[in-house]
Amino acid sequence: MRQFIVVGHKAATSGDFTLDDMPGSAGRIDILARCVTAAFVTSFDIRRDTQVRLVLLGEPDPPKIIRFEGSELKYLNPDERSAGALIRKALQVKLGTEQRRSTKGVYVERAGLAEALRHSDESALFYLHEHGKDVRDVDLHANNAAFILGDHLGLFEEEEEQLSQAQRIRVGPIKLHTDQCITLVHNELDRLCST
Amino acid sequence: MRQFIVVGHKAATSGDFTLDDMPGSAGRIDILARCVTAAFVTSFDIRRDTQVRLVLLGEPDPPKIIRFEGSELKYLNPDERSAGALIRKALQVKLGTEQRRSTKGVYVERAGLAEALRHSDESALFYLHEHGKDVRDVDLHANNAAFILGDHLGLFEEEEEQLSQAQRIRVGPIKLHTDQCITLVHNELDRLCST
Repeated sequence: MRQFIVVGHKAATSGDFTLDDMPGSAGRIDILARCVTAAFVTSFDIRRDTQVRLVLLGEPDPPKIIRFEGSELKYLNPDERSAGALIRKALQVKLGTEQRRSTKGVYVERAGLAEALRHSDESALFYLHEHGKDVRDVDLHANNAAFILGDHLGLFEEEEEQLSQAQRIRVGPIKLHTDQCITLVHNELDRLCST
Repeated sequence: MRQFIVVGHKAATSGDFTLDDMPGSAGRIDILARCVTAAFVTSFDIRRDTQVRLVLLGEPDPPKIIRFEGSELKYLNPDERSAGALIRKALQVKLGTEQRRSTKGVYVERAGLAEALRHSDESALFYLHEHGKDVRDVDLHANNAAFILGDHLGLFEEEEEQLSQAQRIRVGPIKLHTDQCITLVHNELDRLCST
């Protein structure tokens, strides 16, 4: 299983935003939407061995985790709007104490980064960071790895403190967008799995 | 200079489509929009050493080439809609025999794949293809390379015939989307340029 955990510090936590303005009034939900696409979409297929947890920390109702399960996922097309629509649908679900399914393969619950990390206890943990070790020089434990990524704000100090078990890695010499990092991590894992 | 040439076989050639339906009525303009983003956008920066030519072959007024010059490019944000808006703006320009500038760093002209390739005469040519040689085993001529990519339909036989000078390369074991291939090619070039 490949797991990706992405923190959206400003990401809206109610589903009343417009898909026409994901970067603005939705608090950079566009970043999270592109991460979902990068994590799951290949040419005419979906990565079934992948799980994504989006940690949404923006107003008005934080925190929330939206979990995407590749093994069950439906209705995801490659365009950004499609992933944005699945996120919005999940945020429209009324939450109690239990997680709830919004669409096939998409679950939402009241939780934050600590809870997201708890689900990765059995995995090798990697924190994508510009000053990390080159991903090509690291044993990625290809069959059971979890990757934690920040948004345009990175991760805050108190969040980094929760990642003491995680190894810092970088995907290359240039600082890239979160979704681009996911594409590059997948490529490394694809290469490991095909040899 | 890094050049990317992307062929959009169904891509609309008039600027009257809605940004809300790039995958549908605009003839998969969403693919081209994501390619522009992948080619230029890094974390809080634009790749100035990059040039993109989109070859648009859909109705109602084909062929057209939209050229993006990283060295001059403005108004490109990371969301898909932003790149789509620049493409649409270029398609709204009334064309004569000369190329015209639609926004800063974006030019449009009446031309097809043959003309796009003519501008890459001095470059090492690479055709992204699932049965190509692994990009990591190829001399990429990092300072002056042109990469040709198809859309969801790949390239047609008569287009491939124009690529006899191009070496076929692949980015990994799994067939990916065009924009993901661009991200992976950039990463290889970034690594070459940083050593």
